[in-house]
Amino acid sequence: RRGEMAKSTQLIDNEVFRAFATYTAIVLLKMMLMSLITAYFRITRKAFVNPEDTASFGKGESAKKYLRTDADVERVRRGHLNDLENIVPFVGIGLLYALSGPELSTALLHFRIFTGARILHTFAYLIPLPQPSRGLSWAVGYATTFSMAYKVLKTAWLL
Amino acid sequence: RRGEMAKSTQLIDNEVFRAFATYTAIVLLKMMLMSLITAYFRITRKAFVNPEDTASFGKGESAKKYLRTDADVERVRRGHLNDLENIVPFVGIGLLYALSGPELSTALLHFRIFTGARILHTFAYLIPLPQPSRGLSWAVGYATTFSMAYKVLKTAWLL
Amino acid sequence: RRGEMAKSTQLIDNEVFRAFATYTAIVLLKMMLMSLITAYFRITRKAFVNPEDTASFGKGESAKKYLRTDADVERVRRGHLNDLENIVPFVGIGLLYALSGPELSTALLHFRIFTGARILHTFAYLIPLPQPSRGLSWAVGYATTFSMAYKVLKTAWLL
Repeated sequence: RRGEMAKSTQLIDNEVFRAFATYTAIVLLKMMLMSLITAYFRITRKAFVNPEDTASFGKGESAKKYLRTDADVERVRRGHLNDLENIVPFVGIGLLYALSGPELSTALLHFRIFTGARILHTFAYLIPLPQPSRGLSWAVGYATTFSMAYKVLKTAWLL
Repeated sequence: RRGEMAKSTQLIDNEVFRAFATYTAIVLLKMMLMSLITAYFRITRKAFVNPEDTASFGKGESAKKYLRTDADVERVRRGHLNDLENIVPFVGIGLLYALSGPELSTALLHFRIFTGARILHTFAYLIPLPQPSRGLSWAVGYATTFSMAYKVLKTAWLL
Repeated sequence: RRGEMAKSTQLIDNEVFRAFATYTAIVLLKMMLMSLITAYFRITRKAFVNPEDTASFGKGESAKKYLRTDADVERVRRGHLNDLENIVPFVGIGLLYALSGPELSTALLHFRIFTGARILHTFAYLIPLPQPSRGLSWAVGYATTFSMAYKVLKTAWLL
């Protein structure tokens, strides 16, 4: 039993992997939060896309008027899609990076910068802050993932 | 040779990881199925988005009329995007969770509930079932991923 | 210290895993490239979606006219979403596949075919090439991921 546990927690005992697990969980939870914010705006703005979602507002025309797009809902949805486009590469490349044997301090630097940049990006998108806030926070996260990909390819390269 | 095989299959020999691999493969295949359903509706409803996809229907105006949106196609696409938004966090957090040394029974419970909830969600979206079927199945999957993230952060926390 | 390093690079020392890391990094970088291509077309076509992005073009109506959709921008965005829909399953299933102890030559075949198919898919989408170029390259990548999922389920099956 204990031997099995030890085996199963092997990776999680590695400090770089623990850091990766922590930041990945945080950044994925942040992404999941976008679903709740979308739902919040859909309900408060009464802007839905599926007819079955407006059934509680009555039948026919009275419900149909809530099948509409809303600028705030669309803004959150764009932020959510941007998260998917950027956090998916971070999680995939970050996992390989964490297994490529980087220094803990270097790894922490990458994970912290990426996570900070994506949190800033969300605020910049949702408030919204004037440009280039959103553009810069996006670029910093992008460059961080690129830097990890470089380390992965340098370490693992087998084409 | 045998030593190498043993090393490479180490993780897959762990029962929690095997369960994770099984449910992740199922839930990702389910997500991939959405592409086929979208293609099915695009072809049967003759509703395309790329001009090159309608070239076989003739030239000019006769083909152009098939460049249109269709309610069923859009519904499947929304289901597909919702899968991406929810299955990506499950796969990422679920992997870290599987490596955090949970009890097999607890892990199976999480994986089974999430997979069941997402299959229900797809049926609720595509049929469509009256609300709150879709909302509830979404929330159950969401809460399951959240519960795994809590375990990951409790085990791995290294900020 | 050395012992810990050795442990942490254990997976990356496995040849199948190194091949997976290489192709995953390549295919995720290719997906990330779609963001840059979208930005390029948004700027050259002056087609934006967020009001704050057009502020540098002046105030009021003069900037508002750049809040529009552009056929080329939308095309790149569809390609990007298609990448997400297909590369996410590849990364998730591919990781489990790499840990399921396949022959190196078989694994390389899967990774190479998928990566080649997705690069072709991008060219077919963006140029665009006449169908069935895009359809076929999509189907080849899809079938490759499906084949890896079959191996994962055969090896890991624990429901």
